[in-house]
This record gives sequence, C-alpha cells and structure tokens, in this order.
Amino acid sequence: MASSNSSSPLKIGIMGFGPFAQFLSQTLLKRGHSLSAASRSDHSLLCSQMGVHFYRDFDELIGSDAEVVLLSTSIISIDNVIRSVSFDRLRRPLPLFVDVLSVKEYPKELLLQVLPEEADILCTHPMFGPESGKQGWKGLPLVYEKVRIRDHSLCQNYLEIFQSEGCIMVEMSCEEHDKVAAKTQFLTHTIGRVLAEMEIDSTPMDTKGFQALLQLNKNTVKDSFDLYGGLFVHNRFAKQELENLELALKIVKEKLLGSANGVSDL
Amino acid sequence: MASSNSSSPLKIGIMGFGPFAQFLSQTLLKRGHSLSAASRSDHSLLCSQMGVHFYRDFDELIGSDAEVVLLSTSIISIDNVIRSVSFDRLRRPLPLFVDVLSVKEYPKELLLQVLPEEADILCTHPMFGPESGKQGWKGLPLVYEKVRIRDHSLCQNYLEIFQSEGCIMVEMSCEEHDKVAAKTQFLTHTIGRVLAEMEIDSTPMDTKGFQALLQLNKNTVKDSFDLYGGLFVHNRFAKQELENLELALKIVKEKLLGSANGVSDL
Ligand SMILES: NC(=O)c1ccc[n+]([C@@H]2O[C@H](COP(=O)([O-])OP(=O)(O)OC[C@H]3O[C@@H](n4cnc5c(N)ncnc54)[C@H](OP(=O)(O)O)[C@@H]3O)[C@@H](O)[C@H]2O)c1
Ligand SMILES: NC(=O)c1ccc[n+]([C@@H]2O[C@H](COP(=O)([O-])OP(=O)(O)OC[C@H]3O[C@@H](n4cnc5c(N)ncnc54)[C@H](OP(=O)(O)O)[C@@H]3O)[C@@H](O)[C@H]2O)c1
Repeated sequence: MASSNSSSPLKIGIMGFGPFAQFLSQTLLKRGHSLSAASRSDHSLLCSQMGVHFYRDFDELIGSDAEVVLLSTSIISIDNVIRSVSFDRLRRPLPLFVDVLSVKEYPKELLLQVLPEEADILCTHPMFGPESGKQGWKGLPLVYEKVRIRDHSLCQNYLEIFQSEGCIMVEMSCEEHDKVAAKTQFLTHTIGRVLAEMEIDSTPMDTKGFQALLQLNKNTVKDSFDLYGGLFVHNRFAKQELENLELALKIVKEKLLGSANGVSDL
Repeated sequence: MASSNSSSPLKIGIMGFGPFAQFLSQTLLKRGHSLSAASRSDHSLLCSQMGVHFYRDFDELIGSDAEVVLLSTSIISIDNVIRSVSFDRLRRPLPLFVDVLSVKEYPKELLLQVLPEEADILCTHPMFGPESGKQGWKGLPLVYEKVRIRDHSLCQNYLEIFQSEGCIMVEMSCEEHDKVAAKTQFLTHTIGRVLAEMEIDSTPMDTKGFQALLQLNKNTVKDSFDLYGGLFVHNRFAKQELENLELALKIVKEKLLGSANGVSDL
C-alpha cells in the first residue's frame, strides 16, 4: 500500500475522462493533487490545458505511480474497460481503487471479481455533477462504502477531499445506496427524460412549479443517455421504481376520470 | 357602471373565501381596498379577524355596493354557485365581474351565458398561489382577457393592483391560456400528484433534482383535489396532455428496455 498522510497531495490517475471526470478534476487540481488520465477518446489537448498528464492507454496509467486510480467511465462500459486492463503492470504498493459510478452494487461486485486481492477498493457516488455542483460542493452528499480497505490513511486522505469541500459524508452499503437511488435519482432522471420526450418549453405564463420542471429537464438531458441507461440496467431496484411510476400515473388518471364522471353525473 | 379612478380604493366582494381568496385578500387589504365576502362555509371568524365583511349568503353580497365581484370558488362548483344567485338584486351601476379560476374558457362561456348583458367581465388567472406567491407577487404572471369591458377605467383600476405588485401582465385569450396551461400547469400538477401517489420522501443522499421534485410534490398536494380535478375536467386541452405524458413515459421505458437488451446482447 502507498503510505500517505492526510494532508499530503495525492497522485490520482483517472480512467475515463468524460464530463464527470473533467468536472471532478477542476476541484482536485485546485486542491493541489496531481492528476493523470487515460480514456477511450483522445483528451490530450484538454488535459494539457488543464495540467493533467494524458496517457495513450489504460495500461500505461495502470503502470504509472498513481496512488489512487479513479474509475470514471460510463456505467455500461466499466466491465469492458476494467477487464481489458493488464493488472500485472501495477507497481507496489498497489494504488487505492475508487469508482464514482452512479450505481454501486454493480461496480463493487465487478471490482471484487477483477482486481488483484491486494488492491484496496472504495466505492463512491458523489450525488452531484457539473450542473448541481457548479457553485461548489458544500452541502452535497458523497455516498461511499469502504469495500476493502487496509490502508486507512490513504482512504481517509482521499475522502477528506470531499469532506474539506463541505460535502455531506454518507457511509452506506452499496446495496442500500442502490435501493435509495432508484427511488430518488433514477426517478428524477426518468421524469426529466419524460419531460424531454414531451418537448416542454418555457412560456410567458410559467408557474414556479413548471419552471422547476424546465430546469430538471435541462439538467437531466445534459447527462448522457449511457448514464441514464446505466442507472436502469445496473441497478436491480430501478425496474420496480419504473413500474411504481407507471402505476402511480395510472391511479392519478383514474382519479381524474372519476372526477370527470362525477361532474357529468351531476 | 361604477365610475372609478385608477388610484382609488375599490370595494371588492369575493364569492368563495377558500385558501386562494384568503391569500389574495392579504394583498388587497394591504393596498387599502375594502373587502367583503360570501362563501359556502362560514368564514365569519377569520373574516372579522382580517377586517373583511362576511355576508351570510351570495345574494346579500350580490345586493351590496361592491364595485368588483371576484369569483374565487372551486372550478367544479362555479356553475352551481353562479346559477344560484339572484342577479335581479344587483345595484346600478353594475359591478365588474372578475374570476380567478385556473381554467379560462369554461368560466368565460359560463359568465357570458349567466350574467346580465350589462355586466362587464374580466377573466383572470394569477399564475401563483399561497406557496409560490408567499414572498410577494413580483415577476409572477397574471394572465387575463378583457371579455366584455365597457368601464375601462374600473377594469384598469383592478388590473393595476397586480401591476403595482410587480406581476408580469399577460393579456391572452382564454382559449390560448387553456392550451398553454394544459402543457405547463396541468402537467406540473399531474407530476406532483404522481409523486405524491408514490409517497416520495427525502433521504440523506438527495440530489438537487430530487429535492426539486420533493418541493413540487409538497406544493401540489397543498392545493385541493377539486382544483386539480377542475384543471382536467374543464380544460379541453388537458386530456391530450395526459395522453402525451403516458406516451412519453412509454417511449422512455422502451428506450430503457432497449438499452437493457443492448447490454445483454454483448
Ligand atoms: N455526470 C454526473 O453528474 C455524474 C455524477 C456522479 C457520478 N457520475 C458517474 O461518473 C461516470 C462518468 O459519467 P459522465 O457524466 O462523464 O458520462 P458517461 O456517459 O456516464 O461516461 C462517459 C465516460 O465513459 C467513457 N466511455 C463511454 N463508453 C466507453 C466505452 N465503450 N469504452 C471505454 N470508455 C467509454 C467515456 O470515454 P471518452 O470520453 O474517452 O469517450 C467517458 O470517459 C459514470 O459512471 C457516471 O455514472 C456522473
Ligand atoms: N390555490 C391556488 O394556488 C390558485 C391559484 C390561482 C387560481 N386559483 C383558483 O382560485 C379558486 C379557489 O381556489 P382555492 O385554492 O381556494 O381552492 P378550491 O378548492 O379550488 O376552491 C375552494 C373554494 O371553493 C368553494 N367551494 C368548493 N365547493 C363548493 C360548493 N360545492 N359550493 C360552493 N362553494 C364551493 C369553497 O368554499 P368554502 O371555503 O366556503 O367551503 C372555497 O371558497 C379556484 O377556482 C382555483 O382554480 C387557485
């Protein structure tokens, strides 16, 4: 294990340099950590502008001196990405593996299966993104499970980034996360997607409630469909929530039709 | 017609003293207008505390010296209420009739049919309520149609209450209002009701988007089901929007199932 002290800057290697990794990086850099990244696409120009070292492939990053490897690929690609990596390139002490996926049971199982037994694993889900976190992270939740931690000091050092930014630190099992997230985040994304499908648009007479829906729609579609699809496909509780939503709409419709009949009965 | 000058206080008689009338009254009183009310239920205690004269029945209010009669009963009861009134009690000059119903074609037709031809009619919909307007009315829309106005000065005097409070004044036909409101306000209420049916609740890991849904749920269920039912039953465009919502949910579900199949095909 890399020994570390809670205030020292970390060497963090990021796998998957998409919108969320770019967003996280701004704060990680600001806090003085040194970053490298590898990704499916070539982000070398952006990385050089930001001051992030860009590796041409994942194996190079895995062979680097990163103390923390941050997994930030899309939910649906993580399996392919992680299974394509040559872990025999890893240097000792092994880095801490941290994922940021918006589902948690799935990467937990995957990482336990694929990573070398000596590697520590921290599963996290920052409950915010480029939109909701653009004014800072204060008061926004970081959910995490210490799945397999032996170097507690390194793990704490990483978690303290979020703590120092003012995040609400929520330690919770990956299973519990997925149960709750299906009822909250997946539902929210689904409503945002439904509104987008309806092509809702602002008017001169919007109520405040409708303005909130416009905002939700706008923020939801900024996230990739891969992300939304991943919330459904890799959270085993999501299907039930989709069914609950359909059922609730059905009940509301029946109540409306009931009141319509009540009126015509008068 | 009652002659009036745009800065003079008005005598306003309110028919239906429910939550919305009570909310409006606070501002009307603050602006120095003198209020009376009549309602199905006995609101005499609250009225005496507020400084509103309470009549025992609608006919007494109709026979009073009110310059403006404000109709604020529920959408589904307005027909019964207005048809039960003895308009032969009206004093000359006739008052201006103003409604505040959240649907607009329906009261417009009803008032044109039932009120004496000499009575002026202003159809309005303040696009806010006790929750969204509790910090003041600034920037909130008032939609209105001058359905039959001959005493322009009296009508202007009434509208200026909203203008002076900072409302956005949106002159629009009742038909256009209903088309737009079905796509915005009715949709918003429907989503709020669906969320209420699902019994969504706050958790330690709420995203900002989910917090917006919690707020929407809370605000929606504060309004009576009569109000929500009225939005559906008496807005001829609402049914289509309910169907659009169902269809949009179906499409989103198909996309999700498509991405789930995509994954299992790998
Ligand atoms: N956006 C948010 O608000 C948010 C919040 C919390 C957590 N997260 C999580 O953060 C992760 C990244 O999210 P995101 O917003 O950046 O968008 P995303 O669409 O979920 O993921 C984009 C990333 O996945 C990579 N990727 C996609 N398909 C790939 C494939 N077939 N092979 C290899 N890599 C592939 C992309 O690489 P290239 O860019 O190189 O093409 C990019 O780095 C996700 O797991 C998401 O659940 C996101
Ligand atoms: N709440 C809002 O945010 C809002 C915003 C804009 C416009 N509006 C409109 O304002 C009007 C009043 O709304 P509200 O929020 O106060 O609640 P509501 O439930 O729509 O209406 C309540 C009012 O209707 C009366 N009422 C109900 N059933 C009746 C019946 N069978 N016979 C006679 N009167 C009956 C009630 O009388 P009692 O109290 O005497 O029983 C009360 O005055 C509605 O037309 C609504 O569309 C409401």
